Amino acid sequence: MTSLAPIDSFWAVVPAGGAGTRLWPLSRAGAPKFLHDLRGSGRTLIQETHDRLGPLAPGRVLVVTGAAHRDAVAGQLDTLAPEAILAEPSARDSMAAIGLAAALIERADPDAVMGSFAADHVIADVEGFAGAVRTSVEVAREGWLVTLGVEPTFPSSAFGYIRSGEPLAEHPGAARVSQFVEKPSVEVARGYLAEGGYRWNAGMFVARPTVLLDLLADTDPGFAADLRALAADGSRMDEIWPRLPRIAVDHAVAEPAAAAGRVATVPAAFDWEDVGDFDSLAALLGADGVPMTVLGDADVRVVDASGLVVAGGRTVAVVGLDDVVVVDTPDALLVTTRERAQDVKAVVAALKESGRADLT
Amino acid sequence: MTSLAPIDSFWAVVPAGGAGTRLWPLSRAGAPKFLHDLRGSGRTLIQETHDRLGPLAPGRVLVVTGAAHRDAVAGQLDTLAPEAILAEPSARDSMAAIGLAAALIERADPDAVMGSFAADHVIADVEGFAGAVRTSVEVAREGWLVTLGVEPTFPSSAFGYIRSGEPLAEHPGAARVSQFVEKPSVEVARGYLAEGGYRWNAGMFVARPTVLLDLLADTDPGFAADLRALAADGSRMDEIWPRLPRIAVDHAVAEPAAAAGRVATVPAAFDWEDVGDFDSLAALLGADGVPMTVLGDADVRVVDASGLVVAGGRTVAVVGLDDVVVVDTPDALLVTTRERAQDVKAVVAALKESGRADLT
Repeated sequence: MTSLAPIDSFWAVVPAGGAGTRLWPLSRAGAPKFLHDLRGSGRTLIQETHDRLGPLAPGRVLVVTGAAHRDAVAGQLDTLAPEAILAEPSARDSMAAIGLAAALIERADPDAVMGSFAADHVIADVEGFAGAVRTSVEVAREGWLVTLGVEPTFPSSAFGYIRSGEPLAEHPGAARVSQFVEKPSVEVARGYLAEGGYRWNAGMFVARPTVLLDLLADTDPGFAADLRALAADGSRMDEIWPRLPRIAVDHAVAEPAAAAGRVATVPAAFDWEDVGDFDSLAALLGADGVPMTVLGDADVRVVDASGLVVAGGRTVAVVGLDDVVVVDTPDALLVTTRERAQDVKAVVAALKESGRADLT
Repeated sequence: MTSLAPIDSFWAVVPAGGAGTRLWPLSRAGAPKFLHDLRGSGRTLIQETHDRLGPLAPGRVLVVTGAAHRDAVAGQLDTLAPEAILAEPSARDSMAAIGLAAALIERADPDAVMGSFAADHVIADVEGFAGAVRTSVEVAREGWLVTLGVEPTFPSSAFGYIRSGEPLAEHPGAARVSQFVEKPSVEVARGYLAEGGYRWNAGMFVARPTVLLDLLADTDPGFAADLRALAADGSRMDEIWPRLPRIAVDHAVAEPAAAAGRVATVPAAFDWEDVGDFDSLAALLGADGVPMTVLGDADVRVVDASGLVVAGGRTVAVVGLDDVVVVDTPDALLVTTRERAQDVKAVVAALKESGRADLT
């Protein structure tokens, strides 16, 4: 049995949301990050996510996405059954999206263990990923809420951190989570790395659906009841969905559960990238220390320049700029630097404010 | 009589050539610099050139351009008679172009004084220009080849220089030209400015056509004879034109004539710009010390950036770059800096070499 073999009763949930505003103008509300081939691999991020999960949970992958993206997702994941794509009538943050999937799985399979994995992360090491998921499922069967913890490679201020507690004796490498900490400053993050025992919270978690919903019920019984009612009777969507709280699964479940000693972490021993901005995209594509890196298909001419060109078909010439980022799309063009890549969100905010949401 | 009144027997010749490769991808072989509205004034450079000259030489403006641009020029200068646009069957440099115009004018008007003014220069001070031309015509009537000398404002290595000799007693400000000097190094140019008596050669000159052609005949009698033969019988174009030497009027006439003491210079007391690259275009548009300058019509969003955006209709966002140059056209995009603007010609050369002359 290779590590890519199916995992018994394992269900994979893929929340596909988030516009990725720091990747504007490539990523838009209408064509978010997960629908793009950001690695130049010929597969989009959601396709790669499905490629990783399909073998582990054959016929047991659910995608939860906005109603606006339902057709695009179905087009990209053409092996998925139509009922495996759950369309949210409106955005209600991750607890509602993942909780609805949990309630459906709970009804479908009493032995189920579910895992939630964002549609827009990049994980090249498919076997390493599968191994960590397999271990997480084993731990989760015992009733833990399991979160995958990524070994930090630098003091990032862009991710939340997981603080490990005492090891789980029966599961080498796994440990109780003593605390989730919000995105720290770089200074604080540096302290975490020096101290040790901290991992990045990549938002990947594994649990029995009943455990997840019961943990939710501990803090918000009405929310959990609504999700179970919706799973029991899909025709109540219009009635129930609009009243669901807008809250992230981290705040609704993971943090209170950690405080209650119910959360474990399993090390994610594989490279992981959330490709949050063009700087991390450039790094992912190997742009460090080389001449211009090009994503997409175009005639790109470079004179004394480095960085990233996201091609949109037109000829692009870059002369005399280092670590520049040029993103060419049919209706909008971005020019910035890798260092300032985070500030692209200011452009998106300004466009929205001035009535150009059509471009965002 | 205002200074914009017609000048008796004054003929204006406008050589309209040169692709302006340092302004790629805005300026192309197929749509050169002079056909563009580089000032954002609503008028293209050749239209502004005609606006300056038309009042001084009503009905006596001739444009010499490549056959490929004949229709575009006629479209932009719709008050010009069709026969006032001379189409060169092939590029033969400026002596052939201006010499043909001289030979035609020589036949048409025995009292003529002609002036030659490039189609792609920017001169905002229309009255100052007219005054300098008027003085130049007076001097030229006496048999001088008159060149307008622009007061240097910085030690440019991009222009040739005119060295003044003894003043012409009858024409205050005018002087004999002792020498034309080729584009110097910045170091040498600095010496010229310190020494004084040097002016920029803006390529604007005024002379009686007979004087010009006789000066040419002194160095190349066959060339002068061919031009006069062509003016006498336009049907000989296909026979004569291809054999005309490819030489600039400066080398063919102005430099030898200066050595022979036949050239005078009149001060050009007006701002003059040849807009050779995007750095000088940015300066012309007032980009120094201000946030982003935009030429053309587009939604341009700027966060901590300065420089020049030449808009092509799409939304353009620039984040965190100073003195950047972004030129957006339908099929090609340029990103560079004002400092490296000269190197754009390397891109054009590379495109030509690799068989993409269609883009240049």
